[in-house]
Amino acid sequence: MIPDLVIYNTLTRTKEKFEPLVAGRAGLYVCGPTVYSDSHLGHARPNITFDLLYRYLTFLGYKVRYVRNITDVGHMEDEVEETGEDKISKKARLEQIEPMEVVQKYMNSFHYNMQQLNVLAPNIEPRASGHIIEQQLMIDSILKNGFAYEKNGSVYFDVEKYNQQYQYGKLSGRNLDDIKTNTRQLDGQSEKKNSFDFALWKKAAPEHIMRWPSKWGEGFPGWHLECSVMSTKYLGEQFDIHGGGMDLTFPHHECEIAQSTASLGHESVRYWMHNNMITIDGQKMARSLGNFITLRELFTGSNKLLQQAYSPMTIRFFILQAHYRSTVDFSNEALQASEKGLERLMNAMKTLEELAPAEQSTVDISAIKENCFTALSDDLNSPVAIAHLFEGVKIINSVKAGTEKLSASDLAEMKSFYSNVVFDILGLRAENIGGSAQNEVLSGAVELLISLRKEAKANKDWATSDRIRNELNTIGIEMKDTKDGVEWKLK
Amino acid sequence: MIPDLVIYNTLTRTKEKFEPLVAGRAGLYVCGPTVYSDSHLGHARPNITFDLLYRYLTFLGYKVRYVRNITDVGHMEDEVEETGEDKISKKARLEQIEPMEVVQKYMNSFHYNMQQLNVLAPNIEPRASGHIIEQQLMIDSILKNGFAYEKNGSVYFDVEKYNQQYQYGKLSGRNLDDIKTNTRQLDGQSEKKNSFDFALWKKAAPEHIMRWPSKWGEGFPGWHLECSVMSTKYLGEQFDIHGGGMDLTFPHHECEIAQSTASLGHESVRYWMHNNMITIDGQKMARSLGNFITLRELFTGSNKLLQQAYSPMTIRFFILQAHYRSTVDFSNEALQASEKGLERLMNAMKTLEELAPAEQSTVDISAIKENCFTALSDDLNSPVAIAHLFEGVKIINSVKAGTEKLSASDLAEMKSFYSNVVFDILGLRAENIGGSAQNEVLSGAVELLISLRKEAKANKDWATSDRIRNELNTIGIEMKDTKDGVEWKLK
Repeated sequence: MIPDLVIYNTLTRTKEKFEPLVAGRAGLYVCGPTVYSDSHLGHARPNITFDLLYRYLTFLGYKVRYVRNITDVGHMEDEVEETGEDKISKKARLEQIEPMEVVQKYMNSFHYNMQQLNVLAPNIEPRASGHIIEQQLMIDSILKNGFAYEKNGSVYFDVEKYNQQYQYGKLSGRNLDDIKTNTRQLDGQSEKKNSFDFALWKKAAPEHIMRWPSKWGEGFPGWHLECSVMSTKYLGEQFDIHGGGMDLTFPHHECEIAQSTASLGHESVRYWMHNNMITIDGQKMARSLGNFITLRELFTGSNKLLQQAYSPMTIRFFILQAHYRSTVDFSNEALQASEKGLERLMNAMKTLEELAPAEQSTVDISAIKENCFTALSDDLNSPVAIAHLFEGVKIINSVKAGTEKLSASDLAEMKSFYSNVVFDILGLRAENIGGSAQNEVLSGAVELLISLRKEAKANKDWATSDRIRNELNTIGIEMKDTKDGVEWKLK
Repeated sequence: MIPDLVIYNTLTRTKEKFEPLVAGRAGLYVCGPTVYSDSHLGHARPNITFDLLYRYLTFLGYKVRYVRNITDVGHMEDEVEETGEDKISKKARLEQIEPMEVVQKYMNSFHYNMQQLNVLAPNIEPRASGHIIEQQLMIDSILKNGFAYEKNGSVYFDVEKYNQQYQYGKLSGRNLDDIKTNTRQLDGQSEKKNSFDFALWKKAAPEHIMRWPSKWGEGFPGWHLECSVMSTKYLGEQFDIHGGGMDLTFPHHECEIAQSTASLGHESVRYWMHNNMITIDGQKMARSLGNFITLRELFTGSNKLLQQAYSPMTIRFFILQAHYRSTVDFSNEALQASEKGLERLMNAMKTLEELAPAEQSTVDISAIKENCFTALSDDLNSPVAIAHLFEGVKIINSVKAGTEKLSASDLAEMKSFYSNVVFDILGLRAENIGGSAQNEVLSGAVELLISLRKEAKANKDWATSDRIRNELNTIGIEMKDTKDGVEWKLK
């Protein structure tokens, strides 16, 4: 018997039994990436967290519709003040290409990284730029309901007006008076009535490439709007679960609630789930702090903070070894411990396949199974579930050593249980390049070859540089010169 | 010296020197798939053909912007009469899921198949449903210019009117009188003035899910419109090359020319390129003829027409062994010959890396190189280029046997040349699972295991069925149960 799934709802700050709107079905919306640079550690956690939820709901028998968006327009450099350039436009200007080329490039690399992490593709992956009409329709209805105002070709959400009727800040535990106290005053230049108002539609400056016509003039949608629009388009005006990183709670998700409520007259989301953040050696990860690590760097070891490469499954296992609502601190020591733990678990999976059954079991395996599912159903407590899996690993190794025995039916049950939890629910898989030592040696050798090739190129020794690339190609490694250096992958 | 690139322009029916609009840059638009079912043989050819073009242009030093669309709305079952259901809506109805889930599923599997075939991702991959506003704007301008008419919430292109000022049918070599003669008369029920008019905007029936508001009422764009709109949006009102399968010449590309010309007052495309079709054992491929082969079936051998599995690189090589404007006939014999040829070529690539240089060369390698590039520049004549590569293979094998010698500089040049042509331009790569024999054995064994597992499941022998899946997983093969049977892949 698997206990009922209970999830922590950020909105009520309590664990609640999951009761879907429609029996047997679950609708899930998760905020996806803004695709303007390589995916980094910060992308791994929410995507693995909600992949675990998607897999567990599916395992429990729900027919899940999982929607995860791609933000390809409207995300400004300064998220709170909504000023600066659009992140994608800025990158396009720097790379001297069309904004949609930036979007395509980084969307593709995000997908590739997610495949490496064995994160399942969502059922629908809508793009903000692909839903401009739908966003304009929601602005229309918010204007019609009196919760927005137009100014010089832009449309802003009227937070104060909304707060008179509803409660702005309920998700993040803020109230408007506090927000007012903590927000700088407008300098008189702004079009907004209040600095905490936010854009639904922004007038495009003449040099802005990503623009669409509207009844308010040429412009583009505000960043928060797409999620209200695309979640309700594909999941209905009310739906089950909305997930995202804790950093999105305010202002992004708060604005989503306000938009949906102002447009529909009621909230859309029944359960809000937020994963906690990742720190690196105890510090926040930020480009400005010099501790920014992309997923490619992690998988190849090419970052000065890393003592070695860590495989995608090591990263996945590491993230699953913490509960999603706890902070996780990345360090080489912690990752190496995960690598060893994962190896032990995967070795036990192999051992399990080779065990011979006995007449009777000498150990009881039912508790492990029950405890493991109890943990998973308790707000996805993966670290506790994994701890129970390791108790089973001890039994597996004892049976192999001959100090314990398992009957044929218990053995079959163990195999089925481990396969369900390790492969299907936790989404781990055996990795091509074998154990950790091999992995490390391989990636070290490739990095050395890349560096030798760079040297040969600098010396105009094209024969050597071509030779290195060709031989790597022949043994199954593909190299690509990019302006950020050489990328490589196993073919 | 590499000769100037010459390409056959369908519009002029002559080979023309490629002269880009902007020096050093090339804009390329290719019609992508309608994503409502698994990718099949018919998708392999255009994508490999224009991948070759993209790679060769890049090799020649052009900065290429390659745009390939995804059709996710508006493609009706009967393409010519524009009747029946929307292909995606129909599949959504059959699978009982949301149309965008159909789109996502088959778009993902198309991308996966293209990666297997080593087809590079385009720089921009726009979706029809993501460009509704832009399509409405083009309809506006065609209406304004007098080449379209509205009827009951739909808008149709007025072919007769257009033909008075321009020439409808010039690409496919038709003229309107012939078309009139060969088209059935309208039955009086149609909204169209003439049966050869085509829809720019279709009014949505009440049950139609994919719909957007417009000034003509709720509806969706006609199939032909997206390509006129997205090509000019991302490549400019005039651009270099438009590619696609020969079957798209009429009506699709003819309609594209008419739309762009009616809207802009001039044509957009400078070079039209069309790949020829694939037949199977001399017959057209069609579901109704029972000779329909998906790419997954080809790669796994799971189709009764196939004597074995053929690896993605075998398929790629087979397609490149014919000129893109010739028909290609698929047969087991022809594929097996390609498999052997590819193995011989890839073995020579390995041998080349191991050769020791001599003091002086005993053979002249310059002709091979020159002939190969001459062929590629002659309208992408890949079969002739490959024939010249095989002349080099003879030399490589002779040097290995000691009957010929190559100097260090000639050897370096050979390596660089083969790497450029085989890996970069033809886009071939060494495959994970080694030679063809191994490939065949592996895929046979996996298919057998899948069949045994199916049997175990039918007998409710879950232990055996789980065991097969687990052990495959452990050795690096991932299985997935789908409603069309079991899919497997190397992880």
